[in-house]
Amino acid sequence: MADTSLIVPRTLSGFRDRLPKEAMAKEKLLQKLSSVFESFGFAPIETPHLEYADILVKHGSDEIQKELYRFKDHGGRDVVLRFDQTVPLARFISQYRNELDLPFKRFAIGNVFRGERAQRGRYREFTQCDFDFIGSDSIACDAEIIQVIYASLATLNIDEFTIWVNHRSILNGICKHFGITEIERFLRTIDKLEKIGQEGVAKELEELVDSSKISEVLGIITMRQTIAIDEFLDSVAYMKAWNDELKKGLEELEEMFSIIKDLEMDQSRCRVDFSIARGLGYYTGIVYETTLNRLKNIGSVCSGGRYDNLTKSFSKESLSGVGASIGLDRLLAALEELGLLQGRSTSARALIACMDSSYLGFAHKVAESLRRSGIYTEVYPEAQKLKKQLTYANNKGHEYCLIIGENEFLSHTFTLKNMTTGMQLESLSFLRALEIMKE
Amino acid sequence: MADTSLIVPRTLSGFRDRLPKEAMAKEKLLQKLSSVFESFGFAPIETPHLEYADILVKHGSDEIQKELYRFKDHGGRDVVLRFDQTVPLARFISQYRNELDLPFKRFAIGNVFRGERAQRGRYREFTQCDFDFIGSDSIACDAEIIQVIYASLATLNIDEFTIWVNHRSILNGICKHFGITEIERFLRTIDKLEKIGQEGVAKELEELVDSSKISEVLGIITMRQTIAIDEFLDSVAYMKAWNDELKKGLEELEEMFSIIKDLEMDQSRCRVDFSIARGLGYYTGIVYETTLNRLKNIGSVCSGGRYDNLTKSFSKESLSGVGASIGLDRLLAALEELGLLQGRSTSARALIACMDSSYLGFAHKVAESLRRSGIYTEVYPEAQKLKKQLTYANNKGHEYCLIIGENEFLSHTFTLKNMTTGMQLESLSFLRALEIMKE
Repeated sequence: MADTSLIVPRTLSGFRDRLPKEAMAKEKLLQKLSSVFESFGFAPIETPHLEYADILVKHGSDEIQKELYRFKDHGGRDVVLRFDQTVPLARFISQYRNELDLPFKRFAIGNVFRGERAQRGRYREFTQCDFDFIGSDSIACDAEIIQVIYASLATLNIDEFTIWVNHRSILNGICKHFGITEIERFLRTIDKLEKIGQEGVAKELEELVDSSKISEVLGIITMRQTIAIDEFLDSVAYMKAWNDELKKGLEELEEMFSIIKDLEMDQSRCRVDFSIARGLGYYTGIVYETTLNRLKNIGSVCSGGRYDNLTKSFSKESLSGVGASIGLDRLLAALEELGLLQGRSTSARALIACMDSSYLGFAHKVAESLRRSGIYTEVYPEAQKLKKQLTYANNKGHEYCLIIGENEFLSHTFTLKNMTTGMQLESLSFLRALEIMKE
Repeated sequence: MADTSLIVPRTLSGFRDRLPKEAMAKEKLLQKLSSVFESFGFAPIETPHLEYADILVKHGSDEIQKELYRFKDHGGRDVVLRFDQTVPLARFISQYRNELDLPFKRFAIGNVFRGERAQRGRYREFTQCDFDFIGSDSIACDAEIIQVIYASLATLNIDEFTIWVNHRSILNGICKHFGITEIERFLRTIDKLEKIGQEGVAKELEELVDSSKISEVLGIITMRQTIAIDEFLDSVAYMKAWNDELKKGLEELEEMFSIIKDLEMDQSRCRVDFSIARGLGYYTGIVYETTLNRLKNIGSVCSGGRYDNLTKSFSKESLSGVGASIGLDRLLAALEELGLLQGRSTSARALIACMDSSYLGFAHKVAESLRRSGIYTEVYPEAQKLKKQLTYANNKGHEYCLIIGENEFLSHTFTLKNMTTGMQLESLSFLRALEIMKE
């Protein structure tokens, strides 16, 4: 007779669990990213997952409005689970304005919620890592954000990536010069290049731009820097004369690159691409996207740029910001695909296996000593058959198994099994076993 | 004229932000705790903040039911923000039962939501650190959880704490022996000892226990181990003969202490107290609470114990667990009160201050070199007056300020100001400045 009172264990569509292997990988990744952010002087802040609807909702695009987790709480308050960390940042800055020194550099790692249509690789709860500079118009901030993106990917051992850089004024200036008024539609058309080819795009552009200018505008907008940055900027400097937008955009790019071009960082990983736009209604200055050269199909793993007037909903003070956001779930999936994630389900290097439960006290004492020597050590809590304990170590990924049988217990020596090679050494002293495990 | 369209920046009652200083302290604390959990072979897992109501709600106590953040999502699903991490763990174990090796050791650090009446020190969103052993009845697991609690507090440099240990069977056995049927009411009365004194408690006990036995039961239930554990357990061994519950409870305590009593850990920090109960409807074996000797009023910072049949709502397989939970917010508040939190708002040790914006490229190059040498370094992004930049460094807590003026820029030397002592050295080479900062 089936027990009908049992509940089927399941998660909501678009939500998910992480098992130890993946959760460990995420934890290590976040620790590395935090260290990078902190090495540049960014400090963490924390805001709640739940906020008043009027705080978060005004800013959201129409698309986001439909995706909100919005409800009345038990006190009848209209509340929303946050859908990003930027609106909460604006609220935070305005609320604590008197306690914060400008420029304010913060990073925030947290989960956000969007009820998008569930599909492969898209989740309704996902993790964002944001880092932003608030309250300085200096292009040095823009230059620093690029360095942080670079250092973040480098610290994860991803060496084949490209940070694509543009300036919203360049895009506006190009469109103005060619008499294009529907910038958004223009960019959507350009985006189809790989799908429908040059000819297809040229045909669609006929509705947006004078047909005599199509090949010229196509040539410019699809231009991606392949030569050294100084040469490249020289080669497009003539466009500064076209209008003020182009002048401003190109000069700010020059200023930005003058700061980073002499750094040790590999310059070829940071290139200009005039078609990069990022959230048209939002960014106002330099913008960037980051693609992995070997996984172009996954899109940008880190995007951002400069935006004006972050706090306009909450205060009359005009503060600009510049920052970027790492899509952690996408990045984790990419690392997995690139074979850059480790496959263990434990951080412990050693498992101690006892052949009799009366040895467990001794085992815990040995484990305590190993931990004090820096070896993360787990004790199997029962005196199961050795095979069962070795299988456990194998599945979790311990590198060594320290076996305590009667001989070992009486003589205080150890049998040490290397779980990778299968090699087993017997009658080792504690210090000798420690030495081998530390190698 | 007031701009009425501005929104007042604010958080929901019972929710809060963390500014950099506090968020940094929390981050460092979590990293230390994670390392401790991992050093014992616990691995992290992650579950969503939002779950189906039928998954989470059945288990909750009546009190928790009223405090739920429960709503219908845009797809009409009945959903709840998690109120603890134990019910999600039960769901998780049942859902992935075939992929998990038992015993399964996991830790989980995450936020939970309870709409309790807002009051000082109580939040509606707060962070829990749970660590549990699932699927083993061995008392070695109980002994290990105590070691993890000990190591967790020790790693935070808290040296004055006590882990109070009891066994639910001992409590039941004592009550049975004295004919007490209302155990919960009995314990609530005992809890009032400090408030209303021995006499007051004795008076209230008259309703629960034969008056001739009151002084004896009071003597036993308020007994706290002050002598060595072996002596103590010997001194109460006579109670084993009273009933099976006491026999089982005392023997399991003996077994547990036989595992930890020879460890290097300070034995005086772990003591038996027969009045500890922890969630009567839930725990079934050994239980523990942890108090800070210098801050007794804040209550237990880490509690837990053994519970049977964790997964009973989801599966017919009976799995027991043993674990504990650290109340992170309470612990952070305690560390603050004990003066054990650092007061800086940045992890960067050095701030580079430029006297002219044309030095910013050079400054970023110097910062890159310092970071590669292990010195976390921030560049002030604008050429503001030196005083303003030094104030910024002072407020954030940089230890050094590296000043780049015209002389320094031209000669590639540095002026280094120690922000603590105020001492300033001039014309330093890069290597000499690095050497000083590394000291």
